[in-house]
Amino acid sequence: MPKVSDDHLAARRSQILDGARGCFAEYGYDGATVRRLEETTGLSRGAIFHHFRDKDALFLALAKEDAERMADVAANQGLVQVMRDMLADPAQFNWLGTRLEIARRLRTDPEFRANWEERSEELNAATLARLERRKAQGALRDDVPTDVLLGYLELVLDGLIARIASGHTSENLAAVLDLVEASVRRRADQ
Amino acid sequence: MPKVSDDHLAARRSQILDGARGCFAEYGYDGATVRRLEETTGLSRGAIFHHFRDKDALFLALAKEDAERMADVAANQGLVQVMRDMLADPAQFNWLGTRLEIARRLRTDPEFRANWEERSEELNAATLARLERRKAQGALRDDVPTDVLLGYLELVLDGLIARIASGHTSENLAAVLDLVEASVRRRADQ
Repeated sequence: MPKVSDDHLAARRSQILDGARGCFAEYGYDGATVRRLEETTGLSRGAIFHHFRDKDALFLALAKEDAERMADVAANQGLVQVMRDMLADPAQFNWLGTRLEIARRLRTDPEFRANWEERSEELNAATLARLERRKAQGALRDDVPTDVLLGYLELVLDGLIARIASGHTSENLAAVLDLVEASVRRRADQ
Repeated sequence: MPKVSDDHLAARRSQILDGARGCFAEYGYDGATVRRLEETTGLSRGAIFHHFRDKDALFLALAKEDAERMADVAANQGLVQVMRDMLADPAQFNWLGTRLEIARRLRTDPEFRANWEERSEELNAATLARLERRKAQGALRDDVPTDVLLGYLELVLDGLIARIASGHTSENLAAVLDLVEASVRRRADQ
């Protein structure tokens, strides 16, 4: 019965990813040792690395999960909504600090970087598609190229991730996101 | 001759800070071991820790140097100019990745966090003072509270630091910063 087996594999995979997410959030990338991954997933190293080749693969799979979830929201409601969702429940995104810890590796390890960029491609594409659609509807400002608007929103997202990861979510960030959203919109009097 | 002695101390301190900056940039926070700090500063651990109590103290002193330099620019030319300067010479800011690596500690270690916030206070104050001045001159938009404009610029700065630290400085970031600057300005037709 392959169906049951597939379900089992998917459940196991998801159990590993959930545990790893908590482990990265608590201990950071380097601190997420094999022993700690065993504790937080409740599985043996053999089981974990049967599903994921190594810690990098585990990390990239989590990044992919995030990117897919964000891409869904970005495609329908835009990247600012993705940020609002993060702001509404920052604790859920504590693991994102791990993304920051790996910044130096992104800079210095081309293969890791290529894998990482592949993961974020989906989110970029979803955001870009929505921007193009909104622009065609006349909802976006037309004095700034779409790739600059995309770069702008991605830069703010990176800032928000850094802020959430360090626990610095000041009270006025919701108003800041309103300003960000207004900055890409067509002005009412145009 | 206390003057000579003071000069000597200042030169030694500066030698340590320069070496430590390079060490953090290359190896990251955890990777900047005492042995590596000795190599990059060219000084013994005794000499290094005579000037700085521990690695945290060294790190916070570097953050203070940055904050002071940025505060000078921010006070006169604004925070966007600080960002343009970073973008013009990103390699000089590679060490900022270390700021990202410590995000988890900022979230979980209240004392470290308090020390860190004290360091960034000067930059915030300089930026806020300039925003207030520009607002009084009628150069800034007046439909958004100044603290929101400040929070906005700081969020973008955090994003830029993350981008530079990971080597992701895309070509259109200069145009993105133009958009950021325009977003806080009073519109020409107001």
